[in-house]
Amino acid sequence: MSANRLIYLPLGGAGEIGMNCYVYGYGPAGRERLIVVDLGVTFSDMDTTPGVDLIMPSVDWLAERADRIEGIFITHGHEDHVGALGHLWPRLRAPVHARKFTGALAKLKLEDQGQDGSVVQIHAPRPAWVQAGPFRVQFVPIAHSIPESSALLIETPAGRILHSGDFKLDPTPGVGEPWDPEVFAQIGAEGVKVMTCDSTNVFSLHPGRSESTLHAPLQSFIAGAKGMVAATTFASNLARVKALAQAGQAAGRSVCLMGRAMRKMVTVAQETGVLTDFPATISPEDAADVPRHNLMLIVTGTQGERRAASAQLSRGKYLGLQMKEGDTFLFSSRTIPGNERGVLRVVNAFSEMGVDVVDDQDGLYHVSGHANRPDLETLHRLVRPAVVIPLHGEHRHLREHSKLAAAQGIASEIAPNGMMLDLSGDTPQLAEYIETGRVYLDGSVLIGAMDGVIRDRIRMALNGHVIVTLIMDEDDTALGDPWAELMGLPETGKSGRALAETIESDLAEFLGRAGARVLRDDEKLDDGVRRVVRQVSMEEIGKKPEVTVVVSRLA
Amino acid sequence: MSANRLIYLPLGGAGEIGMNCYVYGYGPAGRERLIVVDLGVTFSDMDTTPGVDLIMPSVDWLAERADRIEGIFITHGHEDHVGALGHLWPRLRAPVHARKFTGALAKLKLEDQGQDGSVVQIHAPRPAWVQAGPFRVQFVPIAHSIPESSALLIETPAGRILHSGDFKLDPTPGVGEPWDPEVFAQIGAEGVKVMTCDSTNVFSLHPGRSESTLHAPLQSFIAGAKGMVAATTFASNLARVKALAQAGQAAGRSVCLMGRAMRKMVTVAQETGVLTDFPATISPEDAADVPRHNLMLIVTGTQGERRAASAQLSRGKYLGLQMKEGDTFLFSSRTIPGNERGVLRVVNAFSEMGVDVVDDQDGLYHVSGHANRPDLETLHRLVRPAVVIPLHGEHRHLREHSKLAAAQGIASEIAPNGMMLDLSGDTPQLAEYIETGRVYLDGSVLIGAMDGVIRDRIRMALNGHVIVTLIMDEDDTALGDPWAELMGLPETGKSGRALAETIESDLAEFLGRAGARVLRDDEKLDDGVRRVVRQVSMEEIGKKPEVTVVVSRLA
Repeated sequence: MSANRLIYLPLGGAGEIGMNCYVYGYGPAGRERLIVVDLGVTFSDMDTTPGVDLIMPSVDWLAERADRIEGIFITHGHEDHVGALGHLWPRLRAPVHARKFTGALAKLKLEDQGQDGSVVQIHAPRPAWVQAGPFRVQFVPIAHSIPESSALLIETPAGRILHSGDFKLDPTPGVGEPWDPEVFAQIGAEGVKVMTCDSTNVFSLHPGRSESTLHAPLQSFIAGAKGMVAATTFASNLARVKALAQAGQAAGRSVCLMGRAMRKMVTVAQETGVLTDFPATISPEDAADVPRHNLMLIVTGTQGERRAASAQLSRGKYLGLQMKEGDTFLFSSRTIPGNERGVLRVVNAFSEMGVDVVDDQDGLYHVSGHANRPDLETLHRLVRPAVVIPLHGEHRHLREHSKLAAAQGIASEIAPNGMMLDLSGDTPQLAEYIETGRVYLDGSVLIGAMDGVIRDRIRMALNGHVIVTLIMDEDDTALGDPWAELMGLPETGKSGRALAETIESDLAEFLGRAGARVLRDDEKLDDGVRRVVRQVSMEEIGKKPEVTVVVSRLA
Repeated sequence: MSANRLIYLPLGGAGEIGMNCYVYGYGPAGRERLIVVDLGVTFSDMDTTPGVDLIMPSVDWLAERADRIEGIFITHGHEDHVGALGHLWPRLRAPVHARKFTGALAKLKLEDQGQDGSVVQIHAPRPAWVQAGPFRVQFVPIAHSIPESSALLIETPAGRILHSGDFKLDPTPGVGEPWDPEVFAQIGAEGVKVMTCDSTNVFSLHPGRSESTLHAPLQSFIAGAKGMVAATTFASNLARVKALAQAGQAAGRSVCLMGRAMRKMVTVAQETGVLTDFPATISPEDAADVPRHNLMLIVTGTQGERRAASAQLSRGKYLGLQMKEGDTFLFSSRTIPGNERGVLRVVNAFSEMGVDVVDDQDGLYHVSGHANRPDLETLHRLVRPAVVIPLHGEHRHLREHSKLAAAQGIASEIAPNGMMLDLSGDTPQLAEYIETGRVYLDGSVLIGAMDGVIRDRIRMALNGHVIVTLIMDEDDTALGDPWAELMGLPETGKSGRALAETIESDLAEFLGRAGARVLRDDEKLDDGVRRVVRQVSMEEIGKKPEVTVVVSRLA
């Protein structure tokens, strides 16, 4: 019988920012009892995932071992940590552990997908423990850009792991628990074998600033605004939402929340007690009757998402409200790399209306939720783990974080998604590589990233699509002329003739000279037709389209 | 007979960064003689223009008035100023005016498209003048990130216009002519009615730095590197290419240029005399034999373009060269908003190889080619035009630049693409709105942005494509079963059955109950089939695909 071992396996989030999912296991090799930390999503883009609604880690490896999963722990309520719960839980079917507010969000994620929300168990934070098989887990409050974010202290027979979760060293986060260095010094003093740690801001060289440094700038900015003020921030950043609302209230403005996510977050946060003393709000209907200089909108859409409130307002009237010259729109947020075009579309649309747009140019109106480089050093020093394993980052972040740990004299290992480490000994050992991947929610269906569905969509988007219909009679000769339909292709080619006609006449000629061996064989016929279409298209329009050939044979 | 008037009409570049094209006219209203300034392109993206090769301004308005065009002036050789010349010249057929290096690039653009390069006339800069109908035009050297960039001083009977072109206030640009305040003070003293002016960096609050400030940091950085060094910058930024090559040479490295654009630019610049004293270079074949610590690659691909040299190197061996642990890759460039994902893909791929990637984090290794806000103020003050008309910017840039002029006590007008101004009087008057637009080079064909071709591609990419084939016999009854082909859609739906089969059986049922009135009418049949397919798909996969219906009727 093999000895027990302690393993770590990232399935998502190590090598990307998004779709976090980490596995810890303890037991005999191949029979470890497992816990899962977070089940998050990441977002699609036209370049790589057109039409996809959400992207999740593939949990095939876990699903095959579902009987060994002791529990799923959710560190905090951001989409990249809990967004996949409703979609993936049916394949894992383990109890879900979270704190109160996070648990309420997790429950909603399950119920949105028709799952039973009662699998979520609510826990008190440190000093309480959650027992899960051979693991004892403690939720350790840590500051972040959402209330109730928690590091996880994971006790195992082979040593203690501190999973940092997402965090920043903010002693005055406004809403949510403050950073408490003493707690982490204590945890460090008790001994931590491995710290798996947030790497998001490892390239940010200055110490992070507190959420509270924004209060005065926000207040004076909003007090100085003339017309209507609209501000956007992440709905889950309840400290910011509250600071904005209070600044509006202080400036004699009625506050109106717009966007479903915004209203849902505030409601859940109030119901679970993490948000208190929130100013009274009015509905969009009532807001329409308030003089614009007495009105403050707090809206969704920091990333320029087309259907969010900010983009709607930038296109004209939305829920009865319309911005105009003299009004101000504030981005109390940061643009996530890749979303620049969408954000600028909104900014320019407001500019055309004469609305003044203000963003975080000088860090006055936004701070990050993640620890910067010097803050990471601080946590390293306080906890003093034997080993740092960077997570929550692209490869460049993991690598830089690993170098940072090394510079502090702490051993470190870069473990991207799928790399299972054995943490039993003094230094992490490579256990094995697990095949990982991504799963797409597409409409209501989950599809594998490698199924070819999205590849075909991208090809049609780049190359257009030609559909050729042939009817073959009982003697394997073409009945009538071949028919070509175009989608996403120019009507006319170089010759000045309709492209469809040119394709059809070349196909007719091809069929005329094709032998019986080709004509009676669907595959050969398909190949030949495809070749002709691509060749004609290349000559006529300089591009090789995707081709679908439909051969109907009259029996 | 109407009085002569002076008009300004932006067709591209005012309301976007890219595809610059500006028109000036003088003469009786509706019969003005015209000059065109620049004919540039902008680049496509998957979100809005999948599969498109280049985007250009629509010149329909100009083409209808081609007999009135006195000349096309090219301010400098960047793609967003000259890239459309070869594609659009056949519709304008006017002489092209440029300085030597720019003219050589313009000629190549024409010849690449099979046009006659000899329409390009080469001119000396100020104090020389070019006569073009009622206009007298002077190329005024001004610093930019490509040699030989020129402002245009345009003399008309109704006053003088200074068209700034792209510029920065760099007294030591390394390659190309330096910024000379005396020249612009003199032009100002002689009187400028209107200055049309670059707005790109109006949001950059600090004075721009000189190209020469990079020399020491680049030299010490490359001298300190251990393994192979590869650096990327815009090929047309010949000052930077030279600085990099010299830094490499000073560090005892052989220099190898990679990427077609890089080699072409250096060659044309050397041939036309704007680039001198460039270090000797070696070919990639020879580079493969040089020890890595003696090698410096200067490569294309600052924006992470998939086919450029930087991306090729990030994927493995390229032209016999391969980067590895201990090597360094330098981005001596800035990421253009919207290109972040592509750039980060390259960075992370290098990170996985163990290559250290260094970018412009602290402005050590890159400066912009455009005037920052205080620099714009300097030019405003020196030239002291009666009116500033901002160009070369998104709407937010134009608006901010207009505010900046106003703050200096200079009148200003925001004129986005298509807004024709009458500049005859003391203040600009709206003359009329011209319909403008974009033209796409797609393969070898020019298509209109509103033709629906790209809309269909985007729809297929988002929704997938179902092709339904029906054969109807002489009696308008279906012959055999309907046939559904899927492209870009999941194979299986919610019911667990193949989606194509579910669609086919629902279609068969629909055909069974459809009356003769539907069955014999292609349009009604098409509508009905489409509706069934979209409905079944919505139930099965939660998405409504694009549908192409092919009905073949046996006569």
